[in-house]
Amino acid sequence: MPKISKKGQQMPESPIRKLVPLAEAAKKRGTKVYHLNIGQPDIKTPEVALNAVKNADIEVLEYSHSAGFESYRNKLAAYYQKQGLPVNTEDIIITTGGSEALMFAMGSTMDQGDEIIIPEPFYANYNGFSTASGVKVVPVISGIETGFALPPIADFEKLITDKTKAILICNPGNPTGYLYSKEELSQLASLVKKHDLFLIADEVYREFAYDGYQHFSVMNEPEIAENAIMIDSVSKRFSMCGARIGCVVSKNKDFMAAAMKFAQARLSPPTYAQIASEAALDTPQSYFDDVITEYKDRRDTLVHALNAIEGVTVANPKGAFYCIAKLPVENADDFAKWLLESFDLNGETVMLAPASGFYSTPNVGLDEVRLAYVLKKEDLITSARIIEAALKVYKK
Amino acid sequence: MPKISKKGQQMPESPIRKLVPLAEAAKKRGTKVYHLNIGQPDIKTPEVALNAVKNADIEVLEYSHSAGFESYRNKLAAYYQKQGLPVNTEDIIITTGGSEALMFAMGSTMDQGDEIIIPEPFYANYNGFSTASGVKVVPVISGIETGFALPPIADFEKLITDKTKAILICNPGNPTGYLYSKEELSQLASLVKKHDLFLIADEVYREFAYDGYQHFSVMNEPEIAENAIMIDSVSKRFSMCGARIGCVVSKNKDFMAAAMKFAQARLSPPTYAQIASEAALDTPQSYFDDVITEYKDRRDTLVHALNAIEGVTVANPKGAFYCIAKLPVENADDFAKWLLESFDLNGETVMLAPASGFYSTPNVGLDEVRLAYVLKKEDLITSARIIEAALKVYKK
Ligand SMILES: Cc1ncc(COP(=O)(O)O)c(C=O)c1O
Ligand SMILES: Cc1ncc(COP(=O)(O)O)c(C=O)c1O
Repeated sequence: MPKISKKGQQMPESPIRKLVPLAEAAKKRGTKVYHLNIGQPDIKTPEVALNAVKNADIEVLEYSHSAGFESYRNKLAAYYQKQGLPVNTEDIIITTGGSEALMFAMGSTMDQGDEIIIPEPFYANYNGFSTASGVKVVPVISGIETGFALPPIADFEKLITDKTKAILICNPGNPTGYLYSKEELSQLASLVKKHDLFLIADEVYREFAYDGYQHFSVMNEPEIAENAIMIDSVSKRFSMCGARIGCVVSKNKDFMAAAMKFAQARLSPPTYAQIASEAALDTPQSYFDDVITEYKDRRDTLVHALNAIEGVTVANPKGAFYCIAKLPVENADDFAKWLLESFDLNGETVMLAPASGFYSTPNVGLDEVRLAYVLKKEDLITSARIIEAALKVYKK
Repeated sequence: MPKISKKGQQMPESPIRKLVPLAEAAKKRGTKVYHLNIGQPDIKTPEVALNAVKNADIEVLEYSHSAGFESYRNKLAAYYQKQGLPVNTEDIIITTGGSEALMFAMGSTMDQGDEIIIPEPFYANYNGFSTASGVKVVPVISGIETGFALPPIADFEKLITDKTKAILICNPGNPTGYLYSKEELSQLASLVKKHDLFLIADEVYREFAYDGYQHFSVMNEPEIAENAIMIDSVSKRFSMCGARIGCVVSKNKDFMAAAMKFAQARLSPPTYAQIASEAALDTPQSYFDDVITEYKDRRDTLVHALNAIEGVTVANPKGAFYCIAKLPVENADDFAKWLLESFDLNGETVMLAPASGFYSTPNVGLDEVRLAYVLKKEDLITSARIIEAALKVYKK
């Protein structure tokens, strides 16, 4: 019998995958499960996007340009420019989700055995993309005490070897909700310039910034135009996760030429989804205002309710729609399982994502969970009540 | 300035890419260009697929299951079973095109430095996927004299090392149009069983078989259930290239588990495209009958017209919609350029794909071109006339 690859064996499983059958079993028993574990927003997709697809007049559903519709790239460049980012059409390649953009970025900048430094906790699939690309993730720990701020630059510098090719940040952060300041970005800029590294910034949550904080993009650092690679996506911005459209953006011509070859090999990004994404750019500002107000309300509700629970600490997120909570338990993984297997409050329980899956260093974040505030406020309040009641009876 | 990866440098360019600007320049001069160079069918997409998308009632465009809609996988399994393939729902992962299926197959079976044997000439993007996966392509030459039949098994066996992990075939072949016989499949089956290799069969053209020939699938070899991996796609079958839906199919549980982890990392295949693809399975048989009749007619027209040209040899394709023609020129690459730059017949010229791009061995197939018969008959006849006239004046 032929054997699968080492890579195939090493590909990490989704950190919540083990819990899925338990959640299904709970539902079978009649228990209602509040899903705080996933970043699938319940927000409606803009009608302008959905209607564009309904009204599309297609006879032959053809391959598009490998870099995506030119009309879409033009409009997207204008969108970025309006936000103050110096991005032109030729700096953009449309991808199949931010996911593919990350794969292209890694493939174009790193070879087997090369290293990428990533502040942890980080989006778990960075591990998967790195394994697929044969790249080694070198984590640098950020902690809940600082609200997951950028680790000191000295911590990065200690980790740089001749194998280091890139630093990857997520801004605002999943799972931390942390929004990097202009000052932090500029420290990173000096660092990558000094060591000739790429700075890959995953900005798929760029619109989700609260409390008057401004998102500061990697594209806003003109000094590192050759180092900067921006990853973006329509998934969260327009609640269009199923479209599978993102993009990779850079001013570095060599990088773009390499990324384009990856794009050509897979022919083109999905056509219907591009139609939806292009139209989505006409979404009225009122849609975003409403969405941001809703998320801010949800965040305030959840963070407040969690902080009111004895022994629970939450890092107040300034962006995205996740937060990390430190729980008074020894093993959050076990607690999350127990919530699904053995607990309910009036027939209801919650599904949490143990944060250990977002750390690459072993045995870190064992008492933390990630919560996504993608449910309506009443459900978030109920969820916090369930967690509170559960912590009272849970024996660690 | 940071440097891109070796992989990024080595990623091959599309074999026709250099010609694209020349074709554009020709059009600017007012010359009409017949595109025999690409496999983008002009056939209409089935209405049942287009209408399903128009009528889809979506409020939130969500991620789907990472393996694709369960409803779609069920229907697809039934479709394969009707064709006599023993494929169940759990043997299928829906992918973003056959392209992604190929990436998952390579990533799950091979590590950096491993080798994959591929009969050449082959679909040029196999090179790209191999480079992206860090895998070495080991070509085994098939020739126009035998119509690109399977090379002798001894030729494969000579190339097998302890790095060899898989054999990849394309059946029916792009660019050859060759359809492997049951006998050839069974020879390959013995070979991969003997050496514990995976046999990856790219069957994206499986429905396109002419002259009463039956397509024989890798899934029809029960002896190699653990070795066989089938790659499929809706791109050509339903003229839905822009959907970006394919699948990877295997009975090997370890392989499927690994492929599933690649699928999870990129979250899900595109939702709209899955809606279209699921509905496309209801396309009436009459659609296929018409399409096959049309392609067969086109093939007969093109092959006949080309064979009538002095010095031109064509391998008569039994499947897919490509053929390879040997031309009385020294360098088909140069001829293809010249056709676009310096030739026209009554204001018209043709764009051909030099076949050298489909060989991985250097300096093979230099006098060959690939032609796709995806244009209507009149245009194919005109194209052949243009080639004939061109060959009379072309100085090699
Ligand atoms: C930080 C981050 N990056 C990238 C992605 C990938 O998203 P997509 O491929 O849907 O654009 C996600 C999705 O959850 C994410 O949270
Ligand atoms: C032989 C072969 N395999 C795979 C593909 C990939 O097709 P897709 O990704 O559109 O399914 C193609 C496209 O032309 C092809 O010719």
